[in-house]
Amino acid sequence: MEKTDVLIVGGSAAGIVAATTAKSFYSDKSVMLVRKESQVLIPCGIPYVFGTLECSDQDQVPDAVLSNADVKLKIAEVTAIDPKEKICKISDGTEIGFEKLVLATGSTPIKPAWLKGVDLENVFTIPKDKIYLDHFKASLDGITKVVVVGGGFIGVEMADELCKFGKDVTLVEMMPHVLSLAFDPELAVEAEEVLISRGVKLKTGIGVKEINGDHKVTGVTLNDDEILAADAVILSIGYRPNSTLAEKSGFQINKMGFIRVNEYMRTDNPDIFAIGDCASKTSFITRTEKATMLASTSCAEARIAAMNLYKLSTVRLFGGTISIFCTAIGDLAFGAAGVIENLAKERDFDVLTATFKGIDRHPGTLPDTQKQIVKLIVSKESGIILGGEVIGGKSVGELTNLIGFIIQNRMTVDALLTAQIGTHPLLTAPPTAYPLIKAAEMIAKKRRQ
Amino acid sequence: MEKTDVLIVGGSAAGIVAATTAKSFYSDKSVMLVRKESQVLIPCGIPYVFGTLECSDQDQVPDAVLSNADVKLKIAEVTAIDPKEKICKISDGTEIGFEKLVLATGSTPIKPAWLKGVDLENVFTIPKDKIYLDHFKASLDGITKVVVVGGGFIGVEMADELCKFGKDVTLVEMMPHVLSLAFDPELAVEAEEVLISRGVKLKTGIGVKEINGDHKVTGVTLNDDEILAADAVILSIGYRPNSTLAEKSGFQINKMGFIRVNEYMRTDNPDIFAIGDCASKTSFITRTEKATMLASTSCAEARIAAMNLYKLSTVRLFGGTISIFCTAIGDLAFGAAGVIENLAKERDFDVLTATFKGIDRHPGTLPDTQKQIVKLIVSKESGIILGGEVIGGKSVGELTNLIGFIIQNRMTVDALLTAQIGTHPLLTAPPTAYPLIKAAEMIAKKRRQ
Repeated sequence: MEKTDVLIVGGSAAGIVAATTAKSFYSDKSVMLVRKESQVLIPCGIPYVFGTLECSDQDQVPDAVLSNADVKLKIAEVTAIDPKEKICKISDGTEIGFEKLVLATGSTPIKPAWLKGVDLENVFTIPKDKIYLDHFKASLDGITKVVVVGGGFIGVEMADELCKFGKDVTLVEMMPHVLSLAFDPELAVEAEEVLISRGVKLKTGIGVKEINGDHKVTGVTLNDDEILAADAVILSIGYRPNSTLAEKSGFQINKMGFIRVNEYMRTDNPDIFAIGDCASKTSFITRTEKATMLASTSCAEARIAAMNLYKLSTVRLFGGTISIFCTAIGDLAFGAAGVIENLAKERDFDVLTATFKGIDRHPGTLPDTQKQIVKLIVSKESGIILGGEVIGGKSVGELTNLIGFIIQNRMTVDALLTAQIGTHPLLTAPPTAYPLIKAAEMIAKKRRQ
Repeated sequence: MEKTDVLIVGGSAAGIVAATTAKSFYSDKSVMLVRKESQVLIPCGIPYVFGTLECSDQDQVPDAVLSNADVKLKIAEVTAIDPKEKICKISDGTEIGFEKLVLATGSTPIKPAWLKGVDLENVFTIPKDKIYLDHFKASLDGITKVVVVGGGFIGVEMADELCKFGKDVTLVEMMPHVLSLAFDPELAVEAEEVLISRGVKLKTGIGVKEINGDHKVTGVTLNDDEILAADAVILSIGYRPNSTLAEKSGFQINKMGFIRVNEYMRTDNPDIFAIGDCASKTSFITRTEKATMLASTSCAEARIAAMNLYKLSTVRLFGGTISIFCTAIGDLAFGAAGVIENLAKERDFDVLTATFKGIDRHPGTLPDTQKQIVKLIVSKESGIILGGEVIGGKSVGELTNLIGFIIQNRMTVDALLTAQIGTHPLLTAPPTAYPLIKAAEMIAKKRRQ
């Protein structure tokens, strides 16, 4: 029987970071990563395989990341775990013994069985599977009309990419607005406006009743019986955690189907950890269970699990997901971290909010000036920042990260008002009207009233 | 005698923010701003008046910022302060009475009297003075050869702008490298390479002996007697605080010439505050006095002074300058916050450093991918982040702000390793190789050794 000190199951972002961090922290331990896929794609890059990039080969994670870190790679599927004997069975019939095991088994797109027509030809989902995606992309070649179902960030990105490259795209979202988990309505509307201006047709506030067609898809019937003609349908209505292997091996699974872990990313077995899309998450703010799946957050979980493999550290805990995320539609970028106003109120927080609309260069006469909008959601009682939403140019990615650090440090409005920021005409908003600080000022004023 | 509750002296960034914040916090108080200049320029935008912008009119701060906030504006010079009677004398011979006074008198370019030829025609400095700058710009019209003396950020920006718009520019810096207060040598070299690639001639590690010419400037003699021909010379060798008014009114001035203030931005008179370039500063990290002058930092001081005018708040303190700043040369941006390695060592800190070189998009096959380099300077004993230096695309501005918040929150390497960041192919580095986190990992590894 093959043996390794640390065994990682799953080769996407979480698995890779867990493997390399484990090797970095415990350099005398052997680390092996087992994954099903012969090639791994950068998950967030997948929508861009459909246009901006020439092909999926350009979106690959090179295996050198693993070999350079002295991580052994095995392409195989783990079929069973024996937590007591510390053995994994793999698809070729052999076994691998381990001291510590990290489950990073990821997630699978939801393809609802109850939806009529879901198995028709040219109905696609977006799995992290190169072979499937290459076939999917090839199938779109002769096709004109595409309906994307689900207006989360993957649906929005896919719709925009396909539209940019000549398809006639309709995006259908059941909720009143796209991206409604990350943005309050008044900011989500801005994303919708950009999508429409770029040619995407939007159907929001309405669900899909069935997918039409005999053999191949011909259209989609909405809940109000409107029929949208379609040569292809893309389902981006969410992902379910790959927790079957863990469940049948006796691990606790939470109500949403995630492998239950604590703040060290440990399962109920102290030698076995779970991270990424398959691992349970709690909201940093609301402390309720979340189904958030983000590669970047997975990487934080992976580092934490790997550092705690052999020695627990109370300063290396995962404090709960802040659902931090950003995306871009054309030249406009969108980012969010923490709770949105709607969710905060739903969860019984007494909040104050403020939105400042500024610009991301100064003076605004500079060539590549974009608008920059920052909305802050703040606890009325304590002044602690609970959430932020941002719209602007491409610096929105790092500005969102800045807000993420503000939330993770439980900073208050007062801390923002006294904080030093750096500004530059060609790079940022003006120091006198830096939207993040101005939004904090507006809230400070409301708190005094 | 005219009377106001709050009187602000000085109309640049600090003065404006102090006035508007005072009005926002103490809405029942009358606020007046007195300034000499009829029109105010955005200070950091001044170098761009020489090329990127058509004229200085495009770099103006509109007075509407004041009138919209119900701040009374008076164009005049304050000639004397009577701190006891709470009266300012102004240039038209009248007086203004106040309850609270905020000095935001700014700074003036250094034009050393000992330097021969300093008063020749076509020797310029870069004051925040629209009339002077308009004349200066007009004078450059028929001119080819320009020598810029001083390779701090203003010198670098001026050199690059003038070069971009067809001048033959030589930048002379006495220190071994340009930008050497903000960057350690190995990063400063990258700025030098970009400058050279864009056509700026560099002379580093050598000072200026004298400026040549009879009436008009004809050249510059360096300390090694090399003569650089020049039709114009621009001195960007630093600024001195405008503290003469305060000094003759009996306020304490520190050794560097700044008006001494405490963490509430109060002078030794509890009703009189000083902020911005004229106010004393202590380093957040080294706790020694600093001569840093940055509009963005001034705005933080301005908010703090204004909020503390009538009621002191222990949560609204200025904790010391982190010297946070960013700039751009062409497509490459540079940012820094906290201490550089050289200074930390000079000040007796035991530090560990690490530099990670990555990219700012993912995959790197995406069109506008730039390199992204992050260097961290960390206390070996505590793991607390003391400084960061960044090079990359335009998101460097906000990434520097992120590092600024990390420093101001006294975050540790462990806090970085467990932090959640958001990433996106079109906006940021990959989650598996986010340079800030990777640099923290490298330092964590060194701390374990």
